[in-house]
Amino acid sequence: MATRSHSSFQFSAFPVTMLAHLLAIAGTTLVLVWLLHFQGGFAFKSDNKQKIFNLHPLLMVVGYLIPIGEVIMVYKTVPGTRKVQKIFHLTLHFIALLAGILGIYAVFKFHHELGIPDMYSLHSWLGMSTIGLFGLQWLSAFFFFLWPRAEMPARASLAPWHFFIGAVIFLMAILTAETGLVEKFSFLGLRRSQEALIMNFTGLLILLFGVSVGLTVLLPGNWIG
Amino acid sequence: MATRSHSSFQFSAFPVTMLAHLLAIAGTTLVLVWLLHFQGGFAFKSDNKQKIFNLHPLLMVVGYLIPIGEVIMVYKTVPGTRKVQKIFHLTLHFIALLAGILGIYAVFKFHHELGIPDMYSLHSWLGMSTIGLFGLQWLSAFFFFLWPRAEMPARASLAPWHFFIGAVIFLMAILTAETGLVEKFSFLGLRRSQEALIMNFTGLLILLFGVSVGLTVLLPGNWIG
Repeated sequence: MATRSHSSFQFSAFPVTMLAHLLAIAGTTLVLVWLLHFQGGFAFKSDNKQKIFNLHPLLMVVGYLIPIGEVIMVYKTVPGTRKVQKIFHLTLHFIALLAGILGIYAVFKFHHELGIPDMYSLHSWLGMSTIGLFGLQWLSAFFFFLWPRAEMPARASLAPWHFFIGAVIFLMAILTAETGLVEKFSFLGLRRSQEALIMNFTGLLILLFGVSVGLTVLLPGNWIG
Repeated sequence: MATRSHSSFQFSAFPVTMLAHLLAIAGTTLVLVWLLHFQGGFAFKSDNKQKIFNLHPLLMVVGYLIPIGEVIMVYKTVPGTRKVQKIFHLTLHFIALLAGILGIYAVFKFHHELGIPDMYSLHSWLGMSTIGLFGLQWLSAFFFFLWPRAEMPARASLAPWHFFIGAVIFLMAILTAETGLVEKFSFLGLRRSQEALIMNFTGLLILLFGVSVGLTVLLPGNWIG
């Protein structure tokens, strides 16, 4: 998935990174409209437990999923040396990881305060596997590629696995978001309504964002193309 | 995504194709156990409308999703000339498309007989987009790559887009399957039970199958490696 392998695409990554940013903004907007207008906003402590739950989709989509997509594109969007790009990539992924962990904490808190069982759904299984793999991927990337850093031949043979496993984790994050939207949609008993449309379009925007991020990785960039 | 670009993976596709076949068998088994043992089996006409619904997950997972994954791997699993592999790839994809269309017909029939509205969920939107794109991809591949077939430079510049769009459609098919499982899980009101575990493990097996199919595409094959 290295850039040079795909120069067969006669197309530069730049317009697709712009499209991804627009989809990220649109997705963030819909999530905020949904949670603020239809679901009553956010709180860490409240008698309205729904406000605690609402932190979960906010932090997972706006704090974790969209940022990790943006950070995957760093090598195409941030000018500078490879080293600078790597530091960006790892630092911003770490901040997203913290937001993700906080988002998972929020939903456990919500379950706990209402006596709802945890970890029985496919959504929760996918989500927990995703954040766990993400943490492992982050740690191994830090040690192998940044500090203390493996020798060149080892780095070269590890790189494609880092790309592949990263792609799988990003795919899993998208799967988790979509299954979470569908699960909440069912819990709310929605069918045809404004709120239903907003949730479904959020799902479509997340998918299109994921696809455009995936495409930017394959297309040749401006800085290293 | 052409094989030669990824010879940086020092690993052959063969063991991963075997793993994918095993996951396909395991996933098929779980779907059959779920639908036959817990959900009462299949029927095209019945007073037990659930039996009509059951044709939907059967045809979509066992008739469509798993076969399209297997057919993606044809270039790594079926020996023979490129032309023979292409004919396999297109013919088997066409049969899977027919199974998918029949599976969608089954769920519309189920909705119709019970007066349930159609196409209001993210699952249905994703599924309909997936099958539509699949049909378009199939038609364009037939005309560009098989008959009457575009000229070589055009084919070479279309090939990476065929791979990329194919990967997106396969990802969308997985997303649709997972959201369908989660939606049905909610409709059935499941939490912790044997049936819940079987449905969730089906979801995990589908994900692992998808990941292993994706990996075989990147790894060098035996026939063209």
